[in-house]
Order: sequence, then C-alpha cells, then structure tokens
Amino acid sequence: MEAKKQPLIITDKDRMRSWSRSVRSQGKTIALVPTMGYLHQGHISLVKEAHKHANLIVVSIYVNPGQFSPSEDLSTYPSDFHGDILKLMSIPDGVDVVFHPHNLYDYRTDNKNKNDIVNCTDSRDDCKNLKVEGVVSCVEEKGTGHETWVRVERLEKGLCGNSRPVFFRGVATIVTKLFNIVEPDFAVFGKKDYQQWRIIQRMVRDLDFSIRIIGSEVMRDSDGLAMSSRNVHLSPEEREKALSMNRSLLKAKSCAEKGQINCIELRDLVIQAINEAGGKIDYAEIVDQETLEAAEEIRSSVVFCVAAWFGKVRLIDNVEINI
Amino acid sequence: MEAKKQPLIITDKDRMRSWSRSVRSQGKTIALVPTMGYLHQGHISLVKEAHKHANLIVVSIYVNPGQFSPSEDLSTYPSDFHGDILKLMSIPDGVDVVFHPHNLYDYRTDNKNKNDIVNCTDSRDDCKNLKVEGVVSCVEEKGTGHETWVRVERLEKGLCGNSRPVFFRGVATIVTKLFNIVEPDFAVFGKKDYQQWRIIQRMVRDLDFSIRIIGSEVMRDSDGLAMSSRNVHLSPEEREKALSMNRSLLKAKSCAEKGQINCIELRDLVIQAINEAGGKIDYAEIVDQETLEAAEEIRSSVVFCVAAWFGKVRLIDNVEINI
Repeated sequence: MEAKKQPLIITDKDRMRSWSRSVRSQGKTIALVPTMGYLHQGHISLVKEAHKHANLIVVSIYVNPGQFSPSEDLSTYPSDFHGDILKLMSIPDGVDVVFHPHNLYDYRTDNKNKNDIVNCTDSRDDCKNLKVEGVVSCVEEKGTGHETWVRVERLEKGLCGNSRPVFFRGVATIVTKLFNIVEPDFAVFGKKDYQQWRIIQRMVRDLDFSIRIIGSEVMRDSDGLAMSSRNVHLSPEEREKALSMNRSLLKAKSCAEKGQINCIELRDLVIQAINEAGGKIDYAEIVDQETLEAAEEIRSSVVFCVAAWFGKVRLIDNVEINI
Repeated sequence: MEAKKQPLIITDKDRMRSWSRSVRSQGKTIALVPTMGYLHQGHISLVKEAHKHANLIVVSIYVNPGQFSPSEDLSTYPSDFHGDILKLMSIPDGVDVVFHPHNLYDYRTDNKNKNDIVNCTDSRDDCKNLKVEGVVSCVEEKGTGHETWVRVERLEKGLCGNSRPVFFRGVATIVTKLFNIVEPDFAVFGKKDYQQWRIIQRMVRDLDFSIRIIGSEVMRDSDGLAMSSRNVHLSPEEREKALSMNRSLLKAKSCAEKGQINCIELRDLVIQAINEAGGKIDYAEIVDQETLEAAEEIRSSVVFCVAAWFGKVRLIDNVEINI
C-alpha cells in the first residue's frame, strides 16, 4: 500500500510566499485550488484537474468574511479541517501545501492576533455599524481597516449579484489576495459557480495576472444534485425537492437542442418545475457564456443558470447549452 | 566622459515580464517608477530615490486613459518620448528599462492593434455613450472590454476624489496592472500626489502585494512651485499666481508650528491667499496623514492639501505638518 502524502500546512502568508518562490525558482509550476473548506468530491475533482497542469498543488482553506453580508450564513458555514486534510490525503499524489490562514484582513504588525472580522450572525442588527453606502460585508470597513476591493463591474451584476451584493466583490478581492500570496501559475475554479469562474477569468485578463484559470466541470451526486458544502444542511425532503433544479435544467437543454430557442418558454419550464417541487426561485436566467448578458433566443452558446431556496438553504446550478 | 546608459525600451507586456523574471532569477531586485511621461526633475528625483533601494530600475511611461474622465485633459496631456529618454540617460546610472506600452486595455489576441481607448476630448458629448452608473473613464466600458477596477473605497473619497470621480479608481487599477506586468520589489511614488501615494500604500497592504512602496519628497522649482508636467501649460502670469499655493501653505505650517491649531483659521489663510492671487480653489483641506480624514484641530501629524485652478490648469500641492 502506497504511503499517503502529508500536505505541508502553512498558516502564515509570508511563509506561504517564501515556499512558492523557493519551488518556482527550482522551475516547478504551482496550481492553486481556492476553497472555503468542508471539502467534498467537487473539490477533489478540482485538485485532480490541477494535477493535470502543474507540478505542485496548493489548496487554500479559508472561509472569507469579505464575501458574506451580515445577513448571510458566515457563522453557520460548515467546517471540518481535520476531515479536509484526510480527504486531500486520499487523492492520488495528494496535495503539497494546505494554506490555512487565520485572518487575511488583519494587517496589524503587533502580533496580538486580534480579530478584525465582525462576528456576523443571522441578524442584520449586529452589523449595522458596518454599512458603507449600501455595501456591507463581514469585514470591518472603517478607520485603517481593510478598504480595497476589486470589482468586475459588469459581470458582478445580475444572477447571484442581485441577491448577494457584496459576494463577487469579496470573491474577486480574496482571490487577488491569494494570487499575490501564493503566486501560482494556474488556479482551478469549479464551473458550478459559473458566474464566479467567468468573473475570475475576466479579472485575471483585466489586471494582467500571469495566471492561467482552469474551469472544472460540475460534479454531481448519483442523484444529479450538484455537489456543494451547503448540501449538508438539506433535510432528506429538501434534498429530494432540490433535484428539480438539475432535472429541469437538463429537460430545458434537451428542448433547446431539439429546436426550442425561445428563452421565456425555456425559463418557464424550469421555474414551474422548481416551484412545483416546493423550491423558491431566486433567479432562472439564460445568458451569454462570456458576457452573462440575458438572451432572448438561443442563437449562440449560452448557459442556463438557476438559484433557488430549499428551506433555509440557497443552492445554485447551471447547464451550458452549446450550439 | 562616462558613456551614458541606454535604457532598453520594451513595449510588449509579456516581454516586460520575461525580462523581470529573468533578472530576478539572478537575484537582482527591481524598482518601478510609474510615470505618464513628459518627465521633469520631480520624476528624475523618483529615479534617484529608486536607485537607493534596488539593483535595477524600470520607468514606465504610459498616459493611462483609465484615470481620465472624458471632460479632463487626456487629449492635451503633454508628451515628449524622445526628450524623456534623453533625460533618463542623463541620470547617474540611468535606468535599465523604459516600459512604454501602446494600450494596456486592449486584450484582443488578433494582433490587429485596434484601439479600445475612446478619443476623449474636452467635450463631454463625445463620450456620452460611456456612462456607466455615473462613473465614466476614457476606456470603453461595455461588452467584453475592460471592466475590472480596483477601489480603495475610503481613501479615494474626498480631496481630489471629489472633483475627479474616476481618477483614483483608474490609478489603483493601472498600478495593479503595472505591478502584475513588471513584478517589481519596490515602487516609488511622489508625495506631491499625496492622496495617490497613500492610496497605493493601502492597496498594496490590502491586496497583499509583495512590493515596498517608497514615498519621495515633493520637488520644487527655485520659486517654490511644485514640479508638475502640467506646469508647461501655465502662462507667466498664471505661474506667478500659482506661487500663492506653496507660499500660503508654508505660512500656515509656520502658524501651526507656533501654536495655531484651529484648522478653519489655517484653511482660511490659504484660501484667502490663493483667491487674492487670482486662483480658483478646488479644495484646501487639513487631513490625517494616514486616513485622510479631515481634522478640526491639529493634535496629531496632518497634511495640508490644496488644489486650485490657474486659468485652465488645475494644480495640487501639500505640506506635511508633523507635531
């Protein structure tokens, strides 16, 4: 039996960068797989994809407060660091480094290890003081605290951007930070988070990062549900209802491939199926794969993106329709 | 007579990055001095400062359309590339590379060398189509064009941010791009553009760039006028009027050092002097050196920042008051 590879666990950003520079100076390439932990087979597939491109793999595990608004589920986001390490060790060739920082928004040099992250809960009231012109995250936004945000101004609007106004600002910013700390050659993102993947691609182009972004296909459980760390919060009944997302998306794709190009009709099909299953639609949109602008008719390659609530859990899914 | 050093002139960003990676792999350090050209002794002082820190010096010369609004002076911004090279060659030890890209917002790979920069003139009408939620620059902001902007959300407000709403967004973004292309160890900014210097410092901290930002003191002509590429547009009479900025700032500093801590009184002194000289005040603010928040009384180290119009030329100046 082959010995499993123990990843090096790095928590300090300077040490992380030193490691990267050291191995890159030896001609090795690095792929970064950014995650928020509570890993599942979707994440494992990202690591396997990363192995196709680079010599060495860094997985970051960091629940980023900058992409949560105070009303979202930062405080209940699941975590299991020990289990994550075991899962990463079970992958053939494993991973080389797990970057697991404590707080990437604490810039004090006094080593007192204080916490700039506001304790966000489900109550908006707790974070009232953070409101800055309508945009508010779970990072303290005042005084000499963090204040630099990367905005991908058109792609961040629409789809998930409508109901999660700080989300993509927070994602683009933390990914920029991770890129500057890890200095990878490649980074792998799941196409389950389709808008996120396109935003990071655009950001890398627009800011001239020398990093190739790899999009990895959606991983699904055997029943078709797209894998997500949030699935753990679904009751068996909610999980059954949530299957309506993938099923109706596949039906719409099939209709489109048979010639139905009217997006209103296709959207109605999906909306009705999810409603009937007992889900609550956030959005169901057919958009251009690159600009994410809404399509009226399918005349070029599009992606059908859906977000819906099942109980207290908000899930997303999508299918590409290539013509 | 010592032979003057000819800088290597690089226009392609991939070639620029290759050069940097090659010299850094040999253990050399690089300092970047970002400029928009039409160099004067202020820029030369930045290069001399850069020589104190790094082995090799890269000066970028690029008039960045992203930091100009359509009503500003992009089309009349002075340039003299040949003269700039001669000036850089006259510096002891010269510079190693002049990075002079054509268009850092053109991401097409078809090599047709088209131009995504809108032809901005003094008329707002020409750029009406670019308006995106009140923020508009001389870069085309639609379709698959550039859309990623770095915002330093608190520091970019106030002072020059009031009258130039796209300016600091454009500066932070182009500096991010230059950092990602040149990959320097140091970057030198003039403290004449005090708010810009603080914004870049904060951005580097918040986005975890591994680059040390050096602030270089304001350079002045013998009459006290802060050096600026825009000074060339001043008539002799306007130049005489513009001297009121530095003179009144020094007077205010002297008053503060003698115990006058009331900022309203100190501001009135400067506003009155510039008005009487025939200048038109944009702002005159006494602010905290780090947060740039307005001070009512001078109880810690502050900076007195002024912007004013003399004819069609807008100039800025500042003095630090350290107590």
